[in-house]
Parts: sequence; structure tokens; C-alpha cells
Amino acid sequence: MERPETVAIVGVGLIGGSIGMALRARGLADLVVGIGRDRERLDEGIRLGAIDVATTDPGQGVKEADVVVVCTPVTRIADDVLAAAESAPEGVLITDAGSTKRGIVEAIERHPHGCASFVGGHPIAGSERKGVEHADQDLFEGRACVLTPTANTPPDRLRRARSFWKMLGCRVIEVSPAEHDEALAMTSHLPHAVAAALAGAVPVETLAMAAGAYRDGTRVAGSDASLWAGIFRENCAPLLRAMAAFRERLADFEAALAGGDDAAIIAWWEAARSRRTCYDSLNRTRAIES
Amino acid sequence: MERPETVAIVGVGLIGGSIGMALRARGLADLVVGIGRDRERLDEGIRLGAIDVATTDPGQGVKEADVVVVCTPVTRIADDVLAAAESAPEGVLITDAGSTKRGIVEAIERHPHGCASFVGGHPIAGSERKGVEHADQDLFEGRACVLTPTANTPPDRLRRARSFWKMLGCRVIEVSPAEHDEALAMTSHLPHAVAAALAGAVPVETLAMAAGAYRDGTRVAGSDASLWAGIFRENCAPLLRAMAAFRERLADFEAALAGGDDAAIIAWWEAARSRRTCYDSLNRTRAIES
Repeated sequence: MERPETVAIVGVGLIGGSIGMALRARGLADLVVGIGRDRERLDEGIRLGAIDVATTDPGQGVKEADVVVVCTPVTRIADDVLAAAESAPEGVLITDAGSTKRGIVEAIERHPHGCASFVGGHPIAGSERKGVEHADQDLFEGRACVLTPTANTPPDRLRRARSFWKMLGCRVIEVSPAEHDEALAMTSHLPHAVAAALAGAVPVETLAMAAGAYRDGTRVAGSDASLWAGIFRENCAPLLRAMAAFRERLADFEAALAGGDDAAIIAWWEAARSRRTCYDSLNRTRAIES
Repeated sequence: MERPETVAIVGVGLIGGSIGMALRARGLADLVVGIGRDRERLDEGIRLGAIDVATTDPGQGVKEADVVVVCTPVTRIADDVLAAAESAPEGVLITDAGSTKRGIVEAIERHPHGCASFVGGHPIAGSERKGVEHADQDLFEGRACVLTPTANTPPDRLRRARSFWKMLGCRVIEVSPAEHDEALAMTSHLPHAVAAALAGAVPVETLAMAAGAYRDGTRVAGSDASLWAGIFRENCAPLLRAMAAFRERLADFEAALAGGDDAAIIAWWEAARSRRTCYDSLNRTRAIES
């Protein structure tokens, strides 16, 4: 890849901050510009080494950018990408880190400026924590980044987007925006909803008797409410389908349990366990390859 | 506590093996006897330092025991406790590590021998892994051990049981067997069932796009099927109630999502999040106290 001289990051929180830190720590760009709405948070980003300089003026911030990465909440990404496309140099690559893709990509591709410069991205990394104070320069190391090019995506921008995310340590996967949203509804949005339903169901007075299964099963229920409400809304239909599939698995279990059918419970459990084992194997294989 | 000279462990797997290692590593007993059905596994226990000596003859193994800890699957515990009570010296304390308590305690208390020596126990520690090869001498450090005495429990045995589990590093909680089972249905058995339902619902072909929320939310689905089928069966009624409570939380979310009601989703999420925060505070407080 042509190494970008200037990278502008719109939204310097956990994800944007981690991108900035990865770029700066590895010397992958000459200048990292942070763009945000809160001057104090931006100064914190500079102090923590996530960005070199900062501005609350998006037009100003992207003016010299070779690459713009939009890391704002999903409900704001399309607007932020289009605003950046208006002010950035003609050759700019714009990508994003949003957890949903179809609505965002469609909204952007309706505008020629957006369409000419944008490649949808989603690095599958994060945490229940928010804010640049939890950013981590190694957050993307070995993690998947899903790119969602369409028939309208300029090939050279796609090539540069691949190269950009790989530079940060990601392995790149490419699927359509709709495929991304169906898959992520299952692998991320459903697990978040389930974690919160579990956290909401377990009475506070029993928590002294909770341990590992509760702790891990509810961890992401500590995530930011409005951030996740936005993701759920953007990916409503696929998530409702994922919820229905989950409810069916739950109903199978309850029927076997209520019927005292041990063999059915064991078969149900083993089916789940073998899928979980696939996930572990996948990650072991990757660890060996890398 | 009077330090036990001889401790017999019935069932030398992850839990039994960890108890043996904790006793031996800290010099808390003169002799740790392992009792099991598989000679090779017992020899592995000796090799790993979990037990000093081993036998496949339960009557022989408990003959000199001051304390017997039964760590077999919940469906076998009552029988194993009663068998130990028949052969052990008169002054013996028998306790167990079973994940369910009411059925076990009731079955044991029907027999005078069992009733005179037994205190139900449940150290809330473990892992999705099984076998003495995953045992850990620090498994119980700082973890809760729930004791479930009844009106029939001899006070001196209760005192010795408290002391025994504290010696292993546990903080001891005491509730009735029924209270234990209602609480654990919520804090452990429900999270296990939910993890397996989630693992069973997510299609294998999407797993390359899974990350932290999936990984943690399904971790315990890797647990042993027949072990968990036994726990579910033993605690069927409380677990069905917990499942119903969980399904209600899920239905609230789906209704808010389908209705596009962001405010309801945020309120639902915040209620879950604040309960999860209670759990974190509880554990932080404990970390400071210890």
C-alpha cells in the first residue's frame, strides 16, 4: 500500500482511539488528525497518544486527509461520511468501523461523492467499555475486519481499504452489506441482546452466588445503552430473525427439560457444543497460521 | 479447626482434584485419599499431585477418613455419601461439591447414618473443562462455597464443614437447600442453558465473523453434556421458573425492537446494565476486603 501521509479519524473513542494508537505506534502515517465534538475528549486523545492533532471542525479536519476513518455511532456514520466526502481531497479513501452496514452503505451510495470514495468496514473488535481511555494499540491484532464492497465500489478504493485494515493487524473478510448484517445479527447483536436479557433476569439478591457462567454470559450487558439501541435499530429485521432462531433453541430445551427427556437434553447440548467447538478450532487454526 | 489427618475425595476430576491439590499444596492434611472408578485416572491424579494414594474401593478408601468430600456428578452424590457414611469412622464429616442441593440433602437425610455426618456444600467454582488434568490448587481462592444445613444437621459437623471449606480459600455462605437451588437456577443453570441455546442458534458459517460477545456468551456450552443434563434434571422446577423469567425479559426486548421503540430499548438495557454493575461492585468490594 501507498502509506497514507495523513489519516483523519472521526470519533475518537474506544475504536477510533485504538486505530490512532495503532497508526502512531507503528509509524504507519505521518499525521493522525482526530475529529470530534468534545474538545476535552479530543485533548485526552492527544494526551494518550491516540492522535497528533485535533479539531471539532470536520471540514477542516479532513482537508488534507489521504484516509478518513469514521468511528462514530452507527446512526451518525452515513452523515459523517458524506460530510467528509464533501471536504476531503479528491483522492481520499473513506472507510468506517460501524457494526451495521446495509443502511449505512445504501445511504452513502445515494450520493456520488460518497460513492466515489467509500468502502464500508467493520473491524470485529471492541469491548463493553467506551472512550479513548480504554483504547488499545493492539485491539485489531489478528481480528477480522469485514469489508462490504458493492458493484459501485471503486476497485482502487477497495484495494486501499484492504491494505489499510491489514496494516492495522486485521485479517480482511469481504461480503455484501446484507450478508454482513445477517451474520453479525447472529454473531454479535443476538449475543448482546441475550447477555442483557440474562443480566436483567437474574435477581440482584442472588448475585453473591454467581460465578463464571454468569460473569461471562452477561459481560457485554455493561455496554453503552444508546450505542446498542442504535445498532439494534439499524439491524432490526436480521436481529428479529436471529432472536426467533434463538427462541426456538430455547423452546427445544424447555420441552426436553419439562418432559424429563435426558437423551433429548444431551443431544441438544451436544449439537450446541459441537458448534462451539468449531469456533475454537477456527481460532486455533488461525493462531497456528499467524 | 482441628486439622484433618486424612481426607478422602470421592471423584477425582476437576473439582475433586483441585480440592486435593489445595490440601496437599498447603499442607492442610496428612493424607489425601482419592477414590474413583477408573484406576488410570486415579494414577493420573497421583502423578499430578492431587492425591497421595488411590483406591477403586470406596469402603476401603474412607475407612480412616476424618473428612470425606464427594465430588461425583449430582445424580450419584446421594448414593456415594450414603456408601461413605456406612464405612467411614463414626466421627467423620461428609460434605459434597454438588451443583444442586435439595434432592441430594433430602435423600441423604432419610438415612440416619447420612444425616449424622453430612453437610451439603457447593463451592461455586469450576470451568467448562473436566478431568483432573485441569485441576488447579487455587480454584477456590476467594470463591463462594454455599453450605446448606437443615434442622437435622449436627452443629459440630456444620462447624467443621465451615472450617474445611474456609481452609481451602472459600468464603462460606449458608442458606437452605431449596434457597440454594432457586438461586443457582438463576445464577448458574440458566446461564449454562442460555449459553448452549446461543451456541446452538448461531450458524457455523458465520463464526469467522464472531468475536468477544459470542466467545464469552457461549464459553460454558463447551461443558460436559451428561454432567449438565444431570444438574438440569435435579433442579428442573427452579430452572423452568428461571427460564420463564428469562423469556419474559427477551419478549420485552423483542416487543420494543419490533415496535421501533428506542426509549424502551434503552430503559430495558439500562435495567440489565445496572444489575450487572451490582455484580461488579460486589466483586470489587470483596477484592478490597480480602
